[in-house]
This record gives sequence, C-alpha cells and structure tokens, in this order.
Amino acid sequence: MMQTPIDPSLPVRLGVVGLGRMGRRHAENIARLATVELAGVTDALSEHVAQTAQELRCPGYDGLEPMLSDARLDGIVVATPAAAHLPAIEQAARHGVHVLCEKPLAPDLQTGMRAVAIAEEAGIMLGVGFQMRFDRDLRRLADLVRSGELGRLYQFRASLRDVAPPSRAYLESSGGYFRDGAIHCFDLARWLFGEVYEVAAYGAALSDPMFEEIGDVDNAIVVLRFAGGQIGAVDVSRVAAYGFDSSVEVLAEHGAVRVADGSADGLRHYEHGRMVQRHVLDFMERFAPAYPDEVEGFAAQLRGGSASCASGSDGVEAMRIADAATRSASLGAPVQLEHDA
Amino acid sequence: MMQTPIDPSLPVRLGVVGLGRMGRRHAENIARLATVELAGVTDALSEHVAQTAQELRCPGYDGLEPMLSDARLDGIVVATPAAAHLPAIEQAARHGVHVLCEKPLAPDLQTGMRAVAIAEEAGIMLGVGFQMRFDRDLRRLADLVRSGELGRLYQFRASLRDVAPPSRAYLESSGGYFRDGAIHCFDLARWLFGEVYEVAAYGAALSDPMFEEIGDVDNAIVVLRFAGGQIGAVDVSRVAAYGFDSSVEVLAEHGAVRVADGSADGLRHYEHGRMVQRHVLDFMERFAPAYPDEVEGFAAQLRGGSASCASGSDGVEAMRIADAATRSASLGAPVQLEHDA
Amino acid sequence: MMQTPIDPSLPVRLGVVGLGRMGRRHAENIARLATVELAGVTDALSEHVAQTAQELRCPGYDGLEPMLSDARLDGIVVATPAAAHLPAIEQAARHGVHVLCEKPLAPDLQTGMRAVAIAEEAGIMLGVGFQMRFDRDLRRLADLVRSGELGRLYQFRASLRDVAPPSRAYLESSGGYFRDGAIHCFDLARWLFGEVYEVAAYGAALSDPMFEEIGDVDNAIVVLRFAGGQIGAVDVSRVAAYGFDSSVEVLAEHGAVRVADGSADGLRHYEHGRMVQRHVLDFMERFAPAYPDEVEGFAAQLRGGSASCASGSDGVEAMRIADAATRSASLGAPVQLEHDA
Amino acid sequence: MMQTPIDPSLPVRLGVVGLGRMGRRHAENIARLATVELAGVTDALSEHVAQTAQELRCPGYDGLEPMLSDARLDGIVVATPAAAHLPAIEQAARHGVHVLCEKPLAPDLQTGMRAVAIAEEAGIMLGVGFQMRFDRDLRRLADLVRSGELGRLYQFRASLRDVAPPSRAYLESSGGYFRDGAIHCFDLARWLFGEVYEVAAYGAALSDPMFEEIGDVDNAIVVLRFAGGQIGAVDVSRVAAYGFDSSVEVLAEHGAVRVADGSADGLRHYEHGRMVQRHVLDFMERFAPAYPDEVEGFAAQLRGGSASCASGSDGVEAMRIADAATRSASLGAPVQLEHDA
Repeated sequence: MMQTPIDPSLPVRLGVVGLGRMGRRHAENIARLATVELAGVTDALSEHVAQTAQELRCPGYDGLEPMLSDARLDGIVVATPAAAHLPAIEQAARHGVHVLCEKPLAPDLQTGMRAVAIAEEAGIMLGVGFQMRFDRDLRRLADLVRSGELGRLYQFRASLRDVAPPSRAYLESSGGYFRDGAIHCFDLARWLFGEVYEVAAYGAALSDPMFEEIGDVDNAIVVLRFAGGQIGAVDVSRVAAYGFDSSVEVLAEHGAVRVADGSADGLRHYEHGRMVQRHVLDFMERFAPAYPDEVEGFAAQLRGGSASCASGSDGVEAMRIADAATRSASLGAPVQLEHDA
Repeated sequence: MMQTPIDPSLPVRLGVVGLGRMGRRHAENIARLATVELAGVTDALSEHVAQTAQELRCPGYDGLEPMLSDARLDGIVVATPAAAHLPAIEQAARHGVHVLCEKPLAPDLQTGMRAVAIAEEAGIMLGVGFQMRFDRDLRRLADLVRSGELGRLYQFRASLRDVAPPSRAYLESSGGYFRDGAIHCFDLARWLFGEVYEVAAYGAALSDPMFEEIGDVDNAIVVLRFAGGQIGAVDVSRVAAYGFDSSVEVLAEHGAVRVADGSADGLRHYEHGRMVQRHVLDFMERFAPAYPDEVEGFAAQLRGGSASCASGSDGVEAMRIADAATRSASLGAPVQLEHDA
Repeated sequence: MMQTPIDPSLPVRLGVVGLGRMGRRHAENIARLATVELAGVTDALSEHVAQTAQELRCPGYDGLEPMLSDARLDGIVVATPAAAHLPAIEQAARHGVHVLCEKPLAPDLQTGMRAVAIAEEAGIMLGVGFQMRFDRDLRRLADLVRSGELGRLYQFRASLRDVAPPSRAYLESSGGYFRDGAIHCFDLARWLFGEVYEVAAYGAALSDPMFEEIGDVDNAIVVLRFAGGQIGAVDVSRVAAYGFDSSVEVLAEHGAVRVADGSADGLRHYEHGRMVQRHVLDFMERFAPAYPDEVEGFAAQLRGGSASCASGSDGVEAMRIADAATRSASLGAPVQLEHDA
Repeated sequence: MMQTPIDPSLPVRLGVVGLGRMGRRHAENIARLATVELAGVTDALSEHVAQTAQELRCPGYDGLEPMLSDARLDGIVVATPAAAHLPAIEQAARHGVHVLCEKPLAPDLQTGMRAVAIAEEAGIMLGVGFQMRFDRDLRRLADLVRSGELGRLYQFRASLRDVAPPSRAYLESSGGYFRDGAIHCFDLARWLFGEVYEVAAYGAALSDPMFEEIGDVDNAIVVLRFAGGQIGAVDVSRVAAYGFDSSVEVLAEHGAVRVADGSADGLRHYEHGRMVQRHVLDFMERFAPAYPDEVEGFAAQLRGGSASCASGSDGVEAMRIADAATRSASLGAPVQLEHDA
C-alpha cells in the first residue's frame, strides 16, 4: 500500500492505542503540541477512552480497527501490554499507518523480528520507544562519541534504578528484569558503542523472597563485550529506595564523559547541618522532556526527516542482548550473542 | 467594552507585535504549542512579517491596527522597543484585547503607570514578561517561601550577569543598567520578599570607557531594604565573560534555599587534569523552558485561571525600584522609595 | 633586643597564651606537628593550664611572664580575649619573642596601631590569625588573582555565616558584628583586591530582639569600593540555621572563580526522594586544615621564610574597614576610610 | 620474643625500608608528625639513604639489619618492591619490630600467607597499606554501613583509574592489573560488604598493543558475589587520560551512599562558556591526607589502640580475590574462591 505523503502545513495526525499510564502521557503530550494532532485514542477499557477523549478533546474509538478506518491517521503510538504489540503493528501495517511502539517491541525475540518484517513489507515506519535517546544530555553524549572527539572508546557504564518494583502480576508477565528494565541500557550501549557480542549477567534477589519465587532478580550487574573489543558494565536495581536514577558514562582515549545528575532538583535546601536536594522518584518525571521530543522526532521522521527514534531493528537487537543476559544469569556464565537466532 | 469569553475548547488566539529576537522567539513558542494559536504577527519591518508569516504558517499584518481589526485575537504579546509599549497597549485596550508586554513596561515610571490605568479602565489583562517567574526552580522557591516552611525571612540575594553588553546605541536608549537589567532581580525581590522601601546602589564602569561616556555602569551592587525589615543584595554585571548567569538565594530562619546551577550543562567532560561543564552564554537558552510556560500561563489567565504572570502593577513597582537605584547610584547614598510618585 | 636566630634543625618553640576553645586547638595542633614544639601553655584559669599541660605533655605556666622567662620560646600564639592582646604583645616584645595574635588584633583601632608600633620597635614579628588565608582553595584563588590570569578585576563577593550567635555577654563586648565577624571578609577583600576606600553597611536585627537592645545586628550586607575602582559585596549572618558557611567569588575580565563548597561533606546520601550532604556547623571544622598550616606558616616565617600570615598592619587595616562599616551602618550612609585615623 | 611496651609519653619510633616514591612520602609524613619519630631510613641505593637522612634529619642505615639492630625501632614501614616484603617481615619479626607493609603484601598468595604466619608466631603486628581505609569519607561510609542505618546491603560499586600506565618493566613484574591495581577495590569490597565467594573478571587491552604482548589488560570490569548474596561491580582503567579517579558506592535497602568527588578541586573556574574544575592526576595527591592518618593509625595500634590498618590477613584475602580475578579473566568464566588454597 502506498502512503499518502504528509502535507507539511498540517499537523501529523497521531492516534494512541492503550491508555495506561504511559499511553495517557503520550496522549497528553500530543495534545499539547501543535506539530502533531491527537486524532484519536483507544483502549480496552471504554471508560479510559471516554475520559481521555473528553479531557483532551479528541475522538475516542472502540478499538484500533475503527480508529484506523476512521481517523485518517498518519501514525499510531502503541502503549498496550507487550503481548498486544504485534497485532497492533499488523493492523497498522494493513492501513499503511506508521507505528511508534513502546518497548519492549514484543514479548520475545521471534515476535519482535516478525514485527520488523511486517513493517518492512508494508513500507511503514516502525519506531521503538527508547525515550532515553531523546534526553538532551544523552543526545549530546552520542554526538560527542560519533564526532570522534573522545578518541577510541574504552568502557561504557550505565546504571538504571527504580524506586520500587511493579506488582507481582506485572513482574510475572514481564519476561524478567533483563528484558523489562535493563533493556534500556542495552539500547544505549548499542547506540553509543555499537554491537555487543558477549554478555555476562549476574543477578541477585535480595529485597523480597517473591523475586526468587518467580525466578527473577531485583538487582543485577551485566558485563558487555562489544564487537570493537571494548567492555561495559550495566547495573540495575528495582529497589533503589531513594529514587529513580539513571547515569551513563563513556570512558575513552581522551577522557570521560558523564551524564549523571538528571534526577536532582535545581533547588538546594540548606537545613540544620545538611544540604538537601530533591531526587526524582519516577522515570516519567526524569524523562518528562524526552517524551514530547520523541513524539516530535517521530512526526519529523514521518515528514521525511532523518530517523531519530530507535528503529524496529534496534528494538530487536536490544531484545537479543536482554535474552542473552537472561540466559547468562541462569547459566552463571558469559553467553555469546547468536545473530542468526 | 465587553470581552468575549474564551471558548475553552479552542486555542487562545495570540498575536505578536515586534519580531526582533524576543518577539520571534515568542512567535515560535506560540506556534509550537497547541493550547495557543499564532493568529497573527506584525512588525515595523515588512520583511520580518513576511518571513515569520511564511515560516510559522500564520497571517502577517502590516501594522498592529489591521491585526487587531482582523485577527479575532484574544491577546497580543508586545515585544517592540519600550517606547512603543504604551501605544500598543492603548490600541489593544480599544479592541478589548489582552496584553502580555515585555519588560520594561515603559521607558519611564509615569508612562508605566499610565499603561496600567488604561488597561484597568478597558478591563483588559496586562501582564509583564518577567519570565524568571516561570522558571521551575524559582517557582518552587516562591512556593517554599509562601508556605512558611522557611520561617521568617532574613536575606535575599540575586545575581544576574550577561556575557557582553548590547550595542552602544541600545545602551544609550536603555534607561541605564538598573532599569534595563537589574530590574529582573527587583521583580524577584518583590515577588519573594514583598515591598522594598529603600535602595542603595553602587555602580562601576570598569570594562570600557564607553560606559562612563554614556553615564552608565557595567557592574553594580544594589542593597535593598524590605518593608518587613529584611535586607537583600543584588549584584549584576554586563561583562561576565564566562556566560549568562543567574542565581537566587533566600536565607531564612530555618535555613537557606538556593537556585544556582541552571546555567550548567548536564554533561560532565573529564579531560586531562580537569572537569569541564558547558555554561550557557545567553539568557534565551537559560530560560528556554520559561518562555513557553509564560505564554501558556498568560493563556490560562485569559481563560479565567489564576494570575501567574507579573501584572502591570508588578511592572510599575519594579520600575520604581530601578528608578530609585538609578538615583541612589548617582547620589552615592541610599534612596527611599516614593510610593506616591 | 637582638633575636637569636632559630636553629633550622630544631623545632620552633611556641607557647600558647589563652586556653579557651581557640587556644586549646592551637595547642593541640602545635603538639601534633614535628616542625614546632609546644614549649609552654598559660591561661588565667590554672585548671586549664594543668589539664592542657598534662594532656599535651608540655610545661604549664602560671602566667605569661613566667613562661616568657623560662620556656626559651621563639614565639607565642595569643588567643586571649581581645582586651588582653596588647599587654601580651608588649610582654613578648620585651623578651624578643614573636607573636601570632588571634583576630581582632585589638579592641579598637588605636590600640591595634599601638600593637603594631610596639612590635616594629622591638623587631619582633607580629602575625594576625586570619586563618582563611591558609585555606588551600583561597590560597589558589589569591595566586590566580595575582598571576594576572583573570585579567582586570571587577567584583569581589564574600559570604560568611554562623549557625548561631555567641552569648549576649560575648556579643556585648565584641565591638559589634562588623568588627567581630565581617572582619574576616574585609581581610580577604584587601588580600585579593587591595585597599578599600569606601564602605556602606546595611544591618538588620531580625532573629531576636536582643540584637536591637545591645545595638548590634544579626544580618548585614556591606558594599566595598576598592581603590582600583572595583566594587564588592559582603554578606554575613549570625543566624544561618543550616550551618557555618563561607564562600568567596572573584568576577574578573576573563571570567569568575568561586570557592564555595568547603562546608559540604564528601559523602552523598541518597534517601527516599532526596540527596543529603552533611554541612559543617562550625568554623573550626570548616577550617580545620588551615589552622595547623597557619602555625607552620608562622614558624616558617620565624625561620626566615616569606611572610604568609596576615601581618599586624593587615590586622589594623581590616579593623579600619570594620570601624567604617560600623559607622556607616549607624549613619545609614556610605563612609570613606580615614587613613590617618 | 617479648615486646617492650611503648611508653605513651614518647613518639613511636618508626623506620622506613625502601625510599622510592612511596617510601619517601612515608618518611616525610613521619618526619612532619610529632606522635611518631623517623628513627631511621634504609634503601638499596645508598644515595637515597644519604639524601633522605640529610633532608629529613634522621639516621640513615646501610641495610635493614643494621637499622633493626641499632635504631631502637617500634616499627618499620616496608615500601620496597613486593619481592622484598617477606624477607623484611622476617627480619623485623626476629627483632620483635612491628611492620606496616605496602600492598601487595607479597608477590603471590603462598608467600603472603607465610608472611602472616611469621608475624603471628613472632607476636608482631603486621599491617598492610591499603590507605583508602584512611580516607575520611570512606571511613564515614564504612561506619554508616556497620551502623545498620542503611539496612540490608544490595550492591557495591567501585571505580579506580590511573591516568597512565607504569613502565613496561614495572608492568611485567607486577603480577597483572588485578593484583596490582584492582586489589585496592577488592580490599574495600571486603571491608564494606564482607567475604567474596565468586569473581568474574573481564579485561581488555585497548590502548596499546604492549598490554597484549605482556598478557595484561589496561581496562577491566570485575563482578563480585559476596557471601551474603550481594553483588558488586569494580571497574578499573590504567588509561583514564583525565586523571586519577576513585569512586565508591553502596546501594542498600534504605538508599545509597556515594564517595565520588575527592579528585575535584574546591575552586571553580568560570571561563568563556564553561566551568572548569581541576582534577587530580595522581593517587598520592588524591589520598594525601590518608597516608599520615595511616601512619598515625598504625602508631596508635602499637600503643594498644584498636586496629585501624588492614591486617596481614586482609592483605592475604585481597590477594586471593585478585588471584581469582586473574584466573577468571583468562578462563573467560566466573571463578569461585578457594579458601583452603
């Protein structure tokens, strides 16, 4: 199916599928921006649809198919549970509608690869919501790395921590911590240092016996070996009581660059015998400016601009690393990536 | 004249008068946001109008009067030279169109007071563009001060520095550094600590003999006494070679609060023997997020929300302090504010 | 009287006069160092003498005269109340013993000048305990300023705050806040920017009616004009509930340099929703490394090294600024320094 | 052999064996302090002995045996190459003289264990120079961990980087990077988190083909598993062009604590468009205050105070981890520690 070129004088028409916390945030961002238009929303729960449609003054649909048929969409943002990603991508592909899909692209690697193939066949763009690529500091870091200014790369380091784990129900269907959480760092690793060929993962279940019961971990360290010979360390925690925390460092020939303080407030409180800075508790607050930038980046891609979102293939490769990490952690040994998996 | 109530389902229609650097930025911000609509632009230079109208896809007008007659505006943003503020406010008032006016409200106190009176008579809202009130950290600081959490207030401190002075032509018509630059700090002082009753200003012309020739200063320190007995120090410099810098501190009974690092980049570069952070050179970059927030705050006021912009009276009171500082600096002695001036 | 040259292979023999908090600390520092020897201690209270002599294993004396006669001293450190400084300097001068005197050099300017004259006549060295000159960061700042690297100087800024005021009895005999506290900043101002010719001081009594009753202030801002045309702002507070705080900034042609974080601990605690750093409550902890460096600097001077301590004249000049600030604050107007006072 | 109890009124008499960079620094620190006395120095090079003896005004000896026979020592500081540690400890043991030995305790684990056994039999104290245990921030961190305030421990992280590698000759006899450099982090890991039972090490030779030629690495990541189930990541680099860098983090139930900024200068330079802080290039500058504290801590132990230095056994256990890391890196798999080795 041929795509209608998007008239540059009109806003890009986007629909949102899935109105949970993440989807609702995407809908709000789209509604606030003038370069995109919230052309429709849909969700399995009709109350969500009705409420969002009213509050954000946009059409609500009883299902994706009606929205795709009716809303003259240029693209959709898919923010449903991972199991529903592939069906949504398939439907959008049939309508020639582009897709920005929340991570992980799919519940498993095979499904993710299938999603990429479908999008390619249909000629639609498929982006994956690794919003950290739209953090301004991380973009600058990526530019620095690519500019060659840092010289040869030596070590990559990323830390990603949540203040508290999601519900047991969520965890049980999440595919495990490496696929659900650490995957953000795996995407960053590839984005900055290129392909990974070996992964060694070490997890621990320390905060709650539940993690052992469901065969998952709450803290983990993952060592990466890159195709270029460099090494990297990723550490993640689901139980960083102090807050949401994300830091990235590149150590290279001419020095190091760090992005580390994004979770701290600009206000410094001096109280008796101490200085206190508020620390963000939540990734949505930490990356608040990245989400609208991501949506605008996706819209710009649809208008023919250069690709700034992670692609479907990027989503697949990050999953491949997450899979290898999961295997490594259970084997207790390093695992090499299989690229013909 | 009665004002038409603004339909909450439609964007607030704003026009921009004056398309210099500041006005152009306002126009871009309005065009990017969905809650406001760039309903028209005008400028003394028709090329500016044509270029902006084309780039931002909005109507361009040959003068304010045609724009007010034709564009069904809810409000205008006035970003012309200060001498043209009053005429623009008068015209808008006749059309019942609200005004967000860049600082200073007027070239002199009398004219500023007249602008406030005209707006009041016409029943239009008059806001003044002290954008620092929309900096998120400073808003939090203001909330903290008002909450009483800090206890009694003791000292206010603000520093405001530009990397280099504007042109001699601009400086000669600027009314002097206290009215043109330090006025931002005077507005913050009132916003956080309440009314000022005495001002003592100490200036110096150190970087270039030009400053003495035109009877102005390039560095200054201003001491404020507040009606509540507290004291404050404001220091300003037009020649802070390292960059644009703004910091604010409140010292109070239970401690101190500082907003100081907004000019620093989130990226830390570690080079041989040193750590380097980029420092902003320009107020527009430093307060980039404050400007769209200001426009949205103004639009929300027009829809009946609470007033978050500095008002016309706030603009007048900040000018009153700036006037007193100018007199104090030339007298070499403290000056008490005349509130019936 | 001729001074015996100090044998470089032996430690410099120092006595301590006055074993209050400051004198005791000096005694401990001297006892810990090998380049100086604690050759005697004395105090008005014989228990203090006995206890210190025992704990630090040094001779205790019943008065300064016996110590000067008996202890073969090279120098004394005077840490008595200010009223007793001159008599101690006179006695030491008669014995040809050098003096490192705590600030302020004397209770009033005339007495301070007399102390300098006596030391000069006797050919003894007279140092004044402005220990901030021995802070490593401030030394580097002074070196930078003198190197010319910063270009022309524009503004000086210093802040000095205590967590709580001393007792009413102390305050009543302190000579007022400008002479007792702000004087440290006045010494720094001269050290970095050269002579001051005009002072304008603005005080406020905000925390406790006691300050008004005794004619003193608890918060103050002092504006300085330097002979070179530069300006400076000093702010001080006796009631900075959060801790002891000292910061210094130089704004100059090629940028700015700040020394600001010495009161923060190196440990960062991340607790729920915040980052907490311990803040020093006390000047003795903040300047802990400066005091032994000061004593070693004084000893090095006695061995013929270059003068690193503030001199008696420096002590007098800082008092002159403090006097002018006191007059300015009560006049409510700037005051020019009288150099033939 | 019975040890003579050390008279608490006299300084502890220490000799220094080995006057390379580290030994010379120890000698200078001992000479500067009053609680210890530099009672002798010796080195294989008689010029070193003569020069140090003259400059620090202490006896110089032509060999350790003469020094032990003659200098009435309480203890020696051993700063020779690692191969000479055991003989020095044996000689000291025969004389009943205590030993503070630089790290690593011995060139290999067997020899290290033998050193510990010899010291035990002779009843002498054997300390190992892990000076990071005397860094004030790290001591506070250790106190916090032990206090239980942080709750259960989750993750340990340490980073240790040198600006440039030592000479090829040194590297070839160093035992490899894990034994020579990372060992500091292994000691910290045990000190803070307790025993390690599994090590997985990943090295890379990236900066210079020499590292591959000699079978060593210039960058490495080591994952630790502690007996308590916690995990830890250590990253080290010999080629961190920007400077010497050491950071430590503990993530625990109630939050995290970091010690990270010790390499930054307290002075902030604001230059055109950037802020620059000097970064330490050298571990001796970074840990300058830790070395004299270590010597005083050792002296206090000799006087019967509690043990603050790492013990001989601590030295052995750190070597055991370093050995395991070396094996793991060459195997490409995790290695469990053998405690009966």
